[in-house]
Amino acid sequence: MKKSDVVSEILKDRLYVSPKNKIGEAYAPTNIALCKYWGKRNQELNLPVTSSLSISLADKGAAVSIKVNSVDQVILNNVILTPDSGFSQRLFKYIDLFRIENSIFFQINIQSNIPIAAGLASSACGFASVIKALNHLYAWELSNRELSILARLGSGSASRSIVHGFVEWHVGKRDDGMDSYSELIEKEWPELCIGLCILNRDEKKISSREAMQRTIETGSLYPAWPAKVAVDLSLLRQAITSNDFELLGRTSESNAMTMHATMLSAWPAISYCLPETLVTMQKVWKLRDEGLSLYFTQDAGPNLKLLFLKKDLHFVVEQFENVEVVNPFR
Amino acid sequence: MKKSDVVSEILKDRLYVSPKNKIGEAYAPTNIALCKYWGKRNQELNLPVTSSLSISLADKGAAVSIKVNSVDQVILNNVILTPDSGFSQRLFKYIDLFRIENSIFFQINIQSNIPIAAGLASSACGFASVIKALNHLYAWELSNRELSILARLGSGSASRSIVHGFVEWHVGKRDDGMDSYSELIEKEWPELCIGLCILNRDEKKISSREAMQRTIETGSLYPAWPAKVAVDLSLLRQAITSNDFELLGRTSESNAMTMHATMLSAWPAISYCLPETLVTMQKVWKLRDEGLSLYFTQDAGPNLKLLFLKKDLHFVVEQFENVEVVNPFR
Repeated sequence: MKKSDVVSEILKDRLYVSPKNKIGEAYAPTNIALCKYWGKRNQELNLPVTSSLSISLADKGAAVSIKVNSVDQVILNNVILTPDSGFSQRLFKYIDLFRIENSIFFQINIQSNIPIAAGLASSACGFASVIKALNHLYAWELSNRELSILARLGSGSASRSIVHGFVEWHVGKRDDGMDSYSELIEKEWPELCIGLCILNRDEKKISSREAMQRTIETGSLYPAWPAKVAVDLSLLRQAITSNDFELLGRTSESNAMTMHATMLSAWPAISYCLPETLVTMQKVWKLRDEGLSLYFTQDAGPNLKLLFLKKDLHFVVEQFENVEVVNPFR
Repeated sequence: MKKSDVVSEILKDRLYVSPKNKIGEAYAPTNIALCKYWGKRNQELNLPVTSSLSISLADKGAAVSIKVNSVDQVILNNVILTPDSGFSQRLFKYIDLFRIENSIFFQINIQSNIPIAAGLASSACGFASVIKALNHLYAWELSNRELSILARLGSGSASRSIVHGFVEWHVGKRDDGMDSYSELIEKEWPELCIGLCILNRDEKKISSREAMQRTIETGSLYPAWPAKVAVDLSLLRQAITSNDFELLGRTSESNAMTMHATMLSAWPAISYCLPETLVTMQKVWKLRDEGLSLYFTQDAGPNLKLLFLKKDLHFVVEQFENVEVVNPFR
């Protein structure tokens, strides 16, 4: 099964019609997985080996506007990209799923307030905002479930960036992935804070796609990963339902450490940690030993995301220089 | 089954006789596992979950002399330890296995040229040299196999420090551990060099015993470890037999990374890496990318041990400040 088959299946006779609106606009928040997505069972459709659970980051994300243009063009944060840039190519390969080639061209204007490719899920909010903007442009009136499936075709974690709040991406069983979509967990937690510790803004040397694949193929500890995810998903749901912050924090941190551990067991080993990552982890552990309710999670990059409650906001900001605090339920 | 039962079983009527010699002297090299020992199936007898394979470090080790004295006393590198020091207590608890309490006292003089408790297997050569010195003092004439079993009662990895060269410690099946002993692999490899990169000489905050136990109890990836060891042992035997240095290096490094990965999956996570450990790893990876045959292994501490061949000695010493080179087959 190909991506285009999934698109046809969802859009049916709405595919290849003309845009209904002059401009399609949308915003999608980036998201941070508390239980990680690590490993694909289907590379073409970005179908995952396990379910995952994330929190959307409110105003950290990407705003997109799409309009018909004489040529294909991407403007990223006010800079026109060359057509042969990797980002532009990847984006229009995705757009191609929704148009007959040479029939129509687009200008895509993206305003993103997160560093690209630094393990901050820039592609998650990127593809999610693009599919939402296309949905607006064409007035397809897709459901969040359908948007989530289509966003996944661009990037797995994009399926979790359609809505705000806690989100669970269901692993699904079907070969066509129609049951592998993300769903809002109906629970707000206004005290919850996320602190972005951006330690390095460079592009990562190895993409998550490549790291994931190498881990599945050579990671000797990867076989134990799905069982870990099953346990953590259940603990996280319980933590969210019962507002148990210690359980949420502990489970999230342990899940992230374990994902990185599966990568260290690959050959060649994959390490996204920089020395400053290690120093920051050790600082979190020390503060926690001293009684602070502070945890972290880490994605495919050197940056850490702190988890804490609003009551400790002042202290955390004092302790961590340059931390950028997001309140997902503001 | 207790340690004392094992001692009785091996020494039989030779136990509790008087020393035959005025002084018992012995030397034991420390050893570095190329396939790690990580996890006990029996904590009392230090019986391992898997087999392991090591290389003894020639003149890096401990020389011990033991003689009868009016009181129990340990002299470590010319310093008399107080009787309540942790090291002294642990050592005499081991000595107690071989004497009726209050019947006889010893002065134990240890000259060790490796940092204590910095992940350089100081307890391995410590207990191995002590049991060999007792064997000399009492003229028990124990075989290397018996010495290995008795050394294991002091510290698991000590069972591999009885002889020089490549050593395999057989996991064994028996509850009394009589089939869990170390054995020399009859193969010399004079070109092989080990470079000790001592990045930090502080005592480690968490002992290997405690780290191992926490990993077994909470490490979500630990269930995949024994299968990794089985593969690596077979690859290492093959590498040693066929003088395949790339295979030896790759397998050793991958095994070490994977052992540390099992610890990161524990809760609380255990990380023996310091920022300088990470920097040194990255340097090894970079040099290897550039064509140098250089690998590392890491034990329960921040220090790395480089693996390379004599032909690259000059270059490695140039690249790594303060590296101390050992040639195990000199």
